[in-house]
Amino acid sequence: MNPIDLRSDTVTQPTPEMVKAMTQAPLGDDVYGDDPTVNRLEEMAAEKLGKEAALLVPTGTMGNLIAVLTHTKPGQEMILEEKSHIFLYEVASVARIAGVQTRPLCGPRGQMNLECIEDAIRPDNIHFPETGLIALENTHNMYGGAVLPLEYMKKVFTLAQSRNLPVHLDGARIFNAATALKRDVREIAQYSDSVMFCLSKGLGAPVGSMLVGSQAFINTARKHRKMLGGGMRQAGVLAACGLVALEHMVERLHEDHDNARFLAEELLKTGHFITQPESVKTNIVNAVLDSEKNNAFDLLEKMAQNGVLANARSRRHFRFVTHKDVSREQIIEAVAIFNSVLR
Amino acid sequence: MNPIDLRSDTVTQPTPEMVKAMTQAPLGDDVYGDDPTVNRLEEMAAEKLGKEAALLVPTGTMGNLIAVLTHTKPGQEMILEEKSHIFLYEVASVARIAGVQTRPLCGPRGQMNLECIEDAIRPDNIHFPETGLIALENTHNMYGGAVLPLEYMKKVFTLAQSRNLPVHLDGARIFNAATALKRDVREIAQYSDSVMFCLSKGLGAPVGSMLVGSQAFINTARKHRKMLGGGMRQAGVLAACGLVALEHMVERLHEDHDNARFLAEELLKTGHFITQPESVKTNIVNAVLDSEKNNAFDLLEKMAQNGVLANARSRRHFRFVTHKDVSREQIIEAVAIFNSVLR
Amino acid sequence: MNPIDLRSDTVTQPTPEMVKAMTQAPLGDDVYGDDPTVNRLEEMAAEKLGKEAALLVPTGTMGNLIAVLTHTKPGQEMILEEKSHIFLYEVASVARIAGVQTRPLCGPRGQMNLECIEDAIRPDNIHFPETGLIALENTHNMYGGAVLPLEYMKKVFTLAQSRNLPVHLDGARIFNAATALKRDVREIAQYSDSVMFCLSKGLGAPVGSMLVGSQAFINTARKHRKMLGGGMRQAGVLAACGLVALEHMVERLHEDHDNARFLAEELLKTGHFITQPESVKTNIVNAVLDSEKNNAFDLLEKMAQNGVLANARSRRHFRFVTHKDVSREQIIEAVAIFNSVLR
Amino acid sequence: MNPIDLRSDTVTQPTPEMVKAMTQAPLGDDVYGDDPTVNRLEEMAAEKLGKEAALLVPTGTMGNLIAVLTHTKPGQEMILEEKSHIFLYEVASVARIAGVQTRPLCGPRGQMNLECIEDAIRPDNIHFPETGLIALENTHNMYGGAVLPLEYMKKVFTLAQSRNLPVHLDGARIFNAATALKRDVREIAQYSDSVMFCLSKGLGAPVGSMLVGSQAFINTARKHRKMLGGGMRQAGVLAACGLVALEHMVERLHEDHDNARFLAEELLKTGHFITQPESVKTNIVNAVLDSEKNNAFDLLEKMAQNGVLANARSRRHFRFVTHKDVSREQIIEAVAIFNSVLR
Repeated sequence: MNPIDLRSDTVTQPTPEMVKAMTQAPLGDDVYGDDPTVNRLEEMAAEKLGKEAALLVPTGTMGNLIAVLTHTKPGQEMILEEKSHIFLYEVASVARIAGVQTRPLCGPRGQMNLECIEDAIRPDNIHFPETGLIALENTHNMYGGAVLPLEYMKKVFTLAQSRNLPVHLDGARIFNAATALKRDVREIAQYSDSVMFCLSKGLGAPVGSMLVGSQAFINTARKHRKMLGGGMRQAGVLAACGLVALEHMVERLHEDHDNARFLAEELLKTGHFITQPESVKTNIVNAVLDSEKNNAFDLLEKMAQNGVLANARSRRHFRFVTHKDVSREQIIEAVAIFNSVLR
Repeated sequence: MNPIDLRSDTVTQPTPEMVKAMTQAPLGDDVYGDDPTVNRLEEMAAEKLGKEAALLVPTGTMGNLIAVLTHTKPGQEMILEEKSHIFLYEVASVARIAGVQTRPLCGPRGQMNLECIEDAIRPDNIHFPETGLIALENTHNMYGGAVLPLEYMKKVFTLAQSRNLPVHLDGARIFNAATALKRDVREIAQYSDSVMFCLSKGLGAPVGSMLVGSQAFINTARKHRKMLGGGMRQAGVLAACGLVALEHMVERLHEDHDNARFLAEELLKTGHFITQPESVKTNIVNAVLDSEKNNAFDLLEKMAQNGVLANARSRRHFRFVTHKDVSREQIIEAVAIFNSVLR
Repeated sequence: MNPIDLRSDTVTQPTPEMVKAMTQAPLGDDVYGDDPTVNRLEEMAAEKLGKEAALLVPTGTMGNLIAVLTHTKPGQEMILEEKSHIFLYEVASVARIAGVQTRPLCGPRGQMNLECIEDAIRPDNIHFPETGLIALENTHNMYGGAVLPLEYMKKVFTLAQSRNLPVHLDGARIFNAATALKRDVREIAQYSDSVMFCLSKGLGAPVGSMLVGSQAFINTARKHRKMLGGGMRQAGVLAACGLVALEHMVERLHEDHDNARFLAEELLKTGHFITQPESVKTNIVNAVLDSEKNNAFDLLEKMAQNGVLANARSRRHFRFVTHKDVSREQIIEAVAIFNSVLR
Repeated sequence: MNPIDLRSDTVTQPTPEMVKAMTQAPLGDDVYGDDPTVNRLEEMAAEKLGKEAALLVPTGTMGNLIAVLTHTKPGQEMILEEKSHIFLYEVASVARIAGVQTRPLCGPRGQMNLECIEDAIRPDNIHFPETGLIALENTHNMYGGAVLPLEYMKKVFTLAQSRNLPVHLDGARIFNAATALKRDVREIAQYSDSVMFCLSKGLGAPVGSMLVGSQAFINTARKHRKMLGGGMRQAGVLAACGLVALEHMVERLHEDHDNARFLAEELLKTGHFITQPESVKTNIVNAVLDSEKNNAFDLLEKMAQNGVLANARSRRHFRFVTHKDVSREQIIEAVAIFNSVLR
């Protein structure tokens, strides 16, 4: 029996439609630009996000790194949120590979304070690196899938433009954001120069993310992808799943959001967890153990023995992610198992 | 109708068996180590190459880059052949990303002169970078798929060991080398600390290469793969094809070699090309236009109009690669088309 | 007539004793280790700081960069204070050259919160860079020359040692710290693995800083200095001044501290500035304009016309630095000029 | 008694005039642009080399590194001579710090073959780094101070300009080249976009090199100098010597050249060495031991005991450098000691 896997939406399995698409997709060598399925996916991704061009990359981490490489010059500084995925979870690739200094700023639920951004943009001084990029993350992973409001994104983008700075959006879960906002994803993407979003995660494709931006940006990004070793050959097998993901998997994301809020509510009811159901807008639930007597890592082990998988960020903080492979029934079951394990 | 594509063995399409395997492979999130198909492929690759462990990477370029990152420290120097793929065709990633200086050496058909290697290893001096790595390439792409003799590899490896230097083998086409040498691939791999080889190219998988080495090497390599953005999720869809490639596609490589030599012979007979059929040991044919009156790039265009694709490295140098998707009949046809176009 | 220069203690002119020493110092080629004056200075610096070895470098910026290069590996993360000189004023060299990600933390007057440090040290996780270094700054430039208490340094060092992390001290003005604490500089240096301190700045030498640490650390640092282009030849002309600085210029630093506090008090009395005289412990005075009607940059210009030089960090924030080339009389005069200009 | 030091012209001691100049030079903080002596030197250097602007740097290694950083972007490739100082003796800083791949080419006496340069310039291809720079070295250290002919430099420069590539000249000893060619140094410098030359070495200043180029180039170079930690404060103490070097030390370089050729002739006469006196055009002599029975490193030790210092590059290759601190009499003496030691 498969476990109830609440660790991440990265664990999603391809749908039968994806599997079928994989077997039927026309393929070619994408390094020569010959893969028609990849080409179709890149066109569709650009069109859906409202940008000129797109690039298929093996992972979101590579997509973000290519964006930094393409927007910046080594020795510049980028402004990003202090709990952002790029800063915390991407193996310091921005410093190690792009040679860019990170300038982390804070603010409520992933929204860096605008005055802080303004202050952090470097004036001309021989001691200072140039500021080269502002990065946003929407939805924001570490803040429990928090959604950046369009109004906030607009303000950051306007500020950036007034200072001739590009904005990159780590939109790994941008379709969750669009679903929560009940807006077209294009309305989010308009407030950044480039966006990375994932076909895997909630959309269910086995492998792959997209980087979108202007044609000139994507042309340079393609070369950076080659340098990093991301220029795959018959990548149409992956793109075929990506097409299904983009066409058919977006519309069901609201189910994951409903399940996430339901999970937050139920966990709160158990009396063992502190959660904030009203702030669960997408598919991630942060939950804090109510008492010091339990240890999250021990609990995870017991849960795993009972067929429920999840992650903990510290001895007291759990992180649950809902997705297409966890049903409402399974969530009810998972809560029941928590209850019995904690009793 | 499909063109006769002699540009590269990277254009090979997955076999029906691969397509079937893709649809049936059990999948998981490989970042968590949960993909059983990836795990099986990594075990098989390590076993076949006679190394402790293996890592699936999206491309050969990434595999080579990870090897350099894992063997060296930034600021070191690596010794490599002056026409090697790493030096000429990998977008300077060794300098840009690994911070390693390249020290290219020459020698006959990809075999760097041993005395030159010895001289190039840096003594202790405050002006000198440390030598950190020696890289070989077998088969050697730019020398027409030339095979490094086992005896040569052994000498380089022995020298390297005596100087405490690791050896990395760019074995993108190591199975072609093993086929030509009529030896187990393990016998080649024994003379290097790490090997990268491709599942795509001659073996026909759509995407993917393997990096093999000691367990400690692969552990560190796995982290470097994550940093570069090569840590894919349900990578089992690719690994499934890789398993078929390793199990069933090696035994037919001799056909490509026979076809390559046949092509070299037939081109020579046309009187328009200089080729060296006796030195075609694997699946790559270098051919030089006999006369200055023709231009390779113009010819390629005409050939393409007639359904034959190939590459040229200069106005006079063609490079043809045979593979499973080009039959003997198609090679005869391609030569005929050359003849008619050149008449 | 020379201006009253309160911009920085970097403007100090060599003393007559230094000038004489320069002309008499025995010289040699320091790349060969042949400069007796450099050797003597390096021995004295190591001895005074209580470390095994020392290295003369052209600037404090290079000294800090070499320390980072020597303690870390590219791709690691270093923890440092969010207003530290390394983070804000060294042209992002840590990211650009050392490939190290900066993890800035905050705390009162340059003292990063200890729990934050502990939280920021990365556990083992494939997504995380390793933490490779903790850096402190004493005295802390941006906090008005604030002195880190010995007890605080000890706690950070103990924590670092328990996690096998090195500590580097940016002690550009460590002798000011020692003077303020009335302790031997060795007592400060004991709580770090390496220290950079400046011979220029308050000690008055024209050029040069020292990096001190273990013999093994300095051996590697020497090679990094060569790589950066800091391996000077007859550097004894600079070292000669450094010897005078170390032997004779430390004992008078308290005068600069007294002048700084006096300046803070006098500026406060003018009614135009907010200063905190009781927190001026060394030779730096931060002063905030009391009213929005004046602009610091305009004022600086008027002051310059009247022979007083200083720096402003924003439209309201001045920074004044006292040093051997500004006497008590000149400070009185500078305040008088401020008064007349602001009237 | 001082040894006869033929190791390098880097060992030269400042002249009495320099020592005097150091004590009288007006000084200021060069980071603020306030050092009048540095400013005067930078103007004079630019004027003498026929370029718009100049920058004082602590060493030639830093000057070359800054030139590469300023001309190129990381990930580009630079073409340079295979025995050039930048490639062999600068600790791989070009790869480690600038992220630039080195493409070494060969040719007679430091003159890279022009066709090879043309072939090595990369066409547009996704696998290729861009070519970003061509570097020359004049005089060429490893080829015994060989002088690049003006006609050769012109051809390289013309080729580079036709391909929109900058040329940097490592002119550490450019005044030796100008002396040998009996041409103004400006005539050499005209065939490159930037030149680095040393004030130490043959010109006798204790510390310092100059980088010259266009105003825009030097502006950016100044920031790179700051990043590397080469932005010294009262650098006028060094610049004062540099002014004397430029004004008074150039005219005597022919003496060193005469001495070098004399040394080559005398060594040849001993019967123990192979030298090529007619190809000694400047101040460097390569000499090969005539017999295998002697070992250069052993000989050096014995010579040192007798007061003669030199360097060996291998068991048979000596390198001698003449300079202002070695007189004709001392050369005669050194040869006599060689004779007696070898007898």
